[in-house]
Amino acid sequence: MIGFTGARVDRADNLRLDEARLAELAAHEGARMMQLDGLDPVVDADGRLAWTAVASEGERIFLGLAGDVPLFAPLVRGDPLQRGNAFALLGSMPAEDAALWGGARSLIGWHGRHMFCGACGSATAPFRGGWGRRCGGCGADHFPRVDPVVIMLAEHEGRVLLARQPQYPPRRYSALAGFVEPGESVEEAVAREIREEAGIEVRNVRYVASQPWPFPGQLMMACVAEALSSELTLDLTELEHGFWASREEVAAALAGAPDASFLAPPRFAIAHSLLRHWVEQERR
Amino acid sequence: MIGFTGARVDRADNLRLDEARLAELAAHEGARMMQLDGLDPVVDADGRLAWTAVASEGERIFLGLAGDVPLFAPLVRGDPLQRGNAFALLGSMPAEDAALWGGARSLIGWHGRHMFCGACGSATAPFRGGWGRRCGGCGADHFPRVDPVVIMLAEHEGRVLLARQPQYPPRRYSALAGFVEPGESVEEAVAREIREEAGIEVRNVRYVASQPWPFPGQLMMACVAEALSSELTLDLTELEHGFWASREEVAAALAGAPDASFLAPPRFAIAHSLLRHWVEQERR
Ligand SMILES: [Zn+2]
Ligand SMILES: [Zn+2]
Repeated sequence: MIGFTGARVDRADNLRLDEARLAELAAHEGARMMQLDGLDPVVDADGRLAWTAVASEGERIFLGLAGDVPLFAPLVRGDPLQRGNAFALLGSMPAEDAALWGGARSLIGWHGRHMFCGACGSATAPFRGGWGRRCGGCGADHFPRVDPVVIMLAEHEGRVLLARQPQYPPRRYSALAGFVEPGESVEEAVAREIREEAGIEVRNVRYVASQPWPFPGQLMMACVAEALSSELTLDLTELEHGFWASREEVAAALAGAPDASFLAPPRFAIAHSLLRHWVEQERR
Repeated sequence: MIGFTGARVDRADNLRLDEARLAELAAHEGARMMQLDGLDPVVDADGRLAWTAVASEGERIFLGLAGDVPLFAPLVRGDPLQRGNAFALLGSMPAEDAALWGGARSLIGWHGRHMFCGACGSATAPFRGGWGRRCGGCGADHFPRVDPVVIMLAEHEGRVLLARQPQYPPRRYSALAGFVEPGESVEEAVAREIREEAGIEVRNVRYVASQPWPFPGQLMMACVAEALSSELTLDLTELEHGFWASREEVAAALAGAPDASFLAPPRFAIAHSLLRHWVEQERR
């Protein structure tokens, strides 16, 4: 399972504009509110997400229906650019719980950064069960932002390019990544980012998989591309070091081998899934 | 070539923060400014984008370098939600020109909707050569928004699901599409949208290709998915009619045959490329 995917919830978007029905669902005896610590998840003794009854007061967002159980999350204030302790909990949280929490975190964080209208500067207020904000001045509707990001392996003679940023934990290496800009496709963004960050030209960009990433709200699209050369010219404003890793090195890192040449990305990051895909599926 | 891709420009993002260098490039004799009619393209006698010298006054965005020619676009005001006459010109514009214009349109339109800071409501001002806005109040940096959208063919027994929205031109049918929401992958968004709009469950979602779409600023990701059934329950608030089209019907529509059962999407829309892919590449 790819991290932050697999939420078992029907988003029931047809109910979002029905305020009376949402109020009814929130008042339902079985309705559940996600517990949060700032924007971090709260877990119970089993390591599952913790839930409480729905408070009658306070702003909330409607997450959807889990079977016939209405799920909500509180519209708390919190800085979505701060990571808190989520990473420590995510390693052991079931994928479906991480997915549900991740979606809620992204949405709540978006509210905090969109209290005012970009078009006119007036205050905005939530609507659509928390899946939008409406401007009290010009009346513009604003919808949650999701930033598409490409994350990719350049491949050359059976090795893939890995790199580390200065703020990574010691020995951690990962795939290159960057935001998709206006006016480019996924495939063009992959080629541009590898060119900018490593000075390498690529062809045959192939999409592998995708993942929502809630820090603060990206859509990660993982790709593999064929590098035309291997001499690196790293962008040292972004990257500290890079190298071409063999299948054996990547397999050892994914297995957590103590003598691995680098520390793999965590399991809930799509870089982990992408490396696993490359080791397992693309053996020629 | 997929519509709005293939711009022949080096975005030279390393220059964006270098205001002195950008001013120097703008003052360069060979520098060129894209001509615009509101947000619509202006074409010359050959149907190519029209360019002028760079005015010394006025806000502009830095598009990048075409060889050694610096390219700019004026930071005009215009409603990005209005389409103007662009569609009429795009049909005959070279792909690389459409791509360059599309990126500029998306970016310019984004500025118009982000004059104020979502976090604090203060006025923002452009920076990074037009690839961002900075808040004069809280100092927050804001970056261009790109909205990921899935567009997809559900396939069942050799036919694909096509549908039309009430505002389409007569006889036009296209693939289903919808915005990717926080907390879901591309593949999950495809399944959710087909479920919501047509009442069909799918499996085996396969990514095909992507395209930037400048009305106002989406990233379209085209997929094919395997439908588990064929009985349609259309969401009539979004769709007017839907049907399962055979390969022969789709091929006739793409060829513009006068007796085709529907009118295909325009060539510059990825729905067109997706249908062509399905007819040509997925024949079993
Ligand atoms: Zn407003
Ligand atoms: Zn601000």
